[in-house]
Amino acid sequence: MSTGPWPGLEGLEGRRVHVHDVVMRDGLQNEPVFVPTDDKVRMVDALGRTGLSKIEVTSFTSARAIPALSDADEVMRRIERVPGVVYAALVLNVRGAERALDARADELDLVVSASETHNLANARMTRRQSRAALREVCRIAGRQARVNLSIGTAFGCPMEGPVAFDDVLDIGDEFVAAGVTGISLCDTTGMANPAQVRSACAGLAQRWPGVELTLHLHDTRGMGLANVLAGLEAGVVRFDASLGGLGGCPFAPGASGNVCTEDLVHMLEAMGCATGIDLGALIDCAARLPGLVHHDIRGQVWRAGPATIRHPRPADFDEIAARAHARQRL
Amino acid sequence: MSTGPWPGLEGLEGRRVHVHDVVMRDGLQNEPVFVPTDDKVRMVDALGRTGLSKIEVTSFTSARAIPALSDADEVMRRIERVPGVVYAALVLNVRGAERALDARADELDLVVSASETHNLANARMTRRQSRAALREVCRIAGRQARVNLSIGTAFGCPMEGPVAFDDVLDIGDEFVAAGVTGISLCDTTGMANPAQVRSACAGLAQRWPGVELTLHLHDTRGMGLANVLAGLEAGVVRFDASLGGLGGCPFAPGASGNVCTEDLVHMLEAMGCATGIDLGALIDCAARLPGLVHHDIRGQVWRAGPATIRHPRPADFDEIAARAHARQRL
Repeated sequence: MSTGPWPGLEGLEGRRVHVHDVVMRDGLQNEPVFVPTDDKVRMVDALGRTGLSKIEVTSFTSARAIPALSDADEVMRRIERVPGVVYAALVLNVRGAERALDARADELDLVVSASETHNLANARMTRRQSRAALREVCRIAGRQARVNLSIGTAFGCPMEGPVAFDDVLDIGDEFVAAGVTGISLCDTTGMANPAQVRSACAGLAQRWPGVELTLHLHDTRGMGLANVLAGLEAGVVRFDASLGGLGGCPFAPGASGNVCTEDLVHMLEAMGCATGIDLGALIDCAARLPGLVHHDIRGQVWRAGPATIRHPRPADFDEIAARAHARQRL
Repeated sequence: MSTGPWPGLEGLEGRRVHVHDVVMRDGLQNEPVFVPTDDKVRMVDALGRTGLSKIEVTSFTSARAIPALSDADEVMRRIERVPGVVYAALVLNVRGAERALDARADELDLVVSASETHNLANARMTRRQSRAALREVCRIAGRQARVNLSIGTAFGCPMEGPVAFDDVLDIGDEFVAAGVTGISLCDTTGMANPAQVRSACAGLAQRWPGVELTLHLHDTRGMGLANVLAGLEAGVVRFDASLGGLGGCPFAPGASGNVCTEDLVHMLEAMGCATGIDLGALIDCAARLPGLVHHDIRGQVWRAGPATIRHPRPADFDEIAARAHARQRL
């Protein structure tokens, strides 16, 4: 199998698109096995060398709530810091933020759900309580670290159903005023469709100027990459994804994980976008993942290879061709 | 779990989109088991009542080449003909066309690959030989049946690599002149990307006026539904898909199957397109598929349910909410 150039493309060519991998947090937090700390550090270090713009390394939450990530402090301290890569960590409150800053996280990722029901189920706080706690985190983070606000269930709640997008905008406005460097719109359980994504994202760059806007999409109903395309068309250039598509949501049984990082990078590169990522190196990382989580992973490019791959002709091809050509000469 | 209305959408609302299912041909032809004729007839009959625009029922090829479809004549004769549904069959030559017409196929689906290597490997003929044989089929089909030409490897060949789109256009022009009712552009092994699909399809409605243009997409690298979106944006309103995403390609190991029919219909309906299809009935058909092919299927909506599903709140939700509200009142 040899590889050739990508076929001719148009439109998105040369656009710089940033890919963030969240497998170490959003992926591992749902896994029943504890991935050993050494393996976590090795995986983050390998991912850091692929050209990803950002890696969500872990989550500084209660070890009781998420035992899979109870080694957050040690992992964050031990990883190699590749220049240019943002090493982020999820925090839900001031205590988590202080631990993350102590461990030298480049970015604090704060989370609040647009749906009251999902926020209560997920963070055990009302939205009002979460917002107050996270404003306090913004204050203490000050100039020590970047702060990104992830707005969960931005495209729908698995328990409540449709979410008013005005609520999402209202939360975003509040935290842009509080000085966050970025806002992520999260389709927590894969309810978004491309028409909705395009409509939601149009105009956000004007509403929140200077703020990095990220789409965090799940592939629960197979629309993940179609939603990415819709986001690109609306001007979004930052996407979260999870190696091997690992992840899910405890409040939506049957929900598969995030958009798969290597499938996303493959599509972006195929369309001529500039991700700065070595797809082969990323596929190598994905290939190591089943060994860490002890089960198969969803990603498709990892299995089928990129579209530039050349497969050999069938063993009897020369015979078939010779017979066909002989008939043609008759 | 109850279902609510789709969230607010824009752009594609109300557009009539036709979905064709090819599982009985493209799906089953790769299966090692022979699905009993009675089961095939029952599945086609169930699919016919879901609102699909077209069903590719079988393939009139050599029973030796495709033993899984050796009962083509009997299946085509026995199925129920739901008014408005087109019952199509694949044929590669005059002999197959005669059998299909005898069995009352509404439409003959002819296949030639844009890539010479793929055509030789797949049809054991040069492209020139296939084109001559298929022109002869067009002649004998006359006014007895609709004729659709599927152009394989239209977006790339797994063995040759990139395919010159001018070759695709040239084949299309020839068969439009020969009087076909439709042309399908087939991404046989899932090499197409959305930028390529949009660029390829733009302008085809003008080039081939009055001819039904269909996209036949595979999901090998996860781009299937993103490619559908790109096709829709370029004005395509007809899509092939396979129930449960069943299918593959013998010349591209690791290639997964067609775009999954129920996932496609779910996305189209979520965006407000009018497919005329009862998604629940389609999901019921998909749920019966593993019993026929004796393995798991790929589709995601079948597993996760549509985005309109409401999941119950966690069992301890009322307690969590009461505690949070009590803290808030302090």
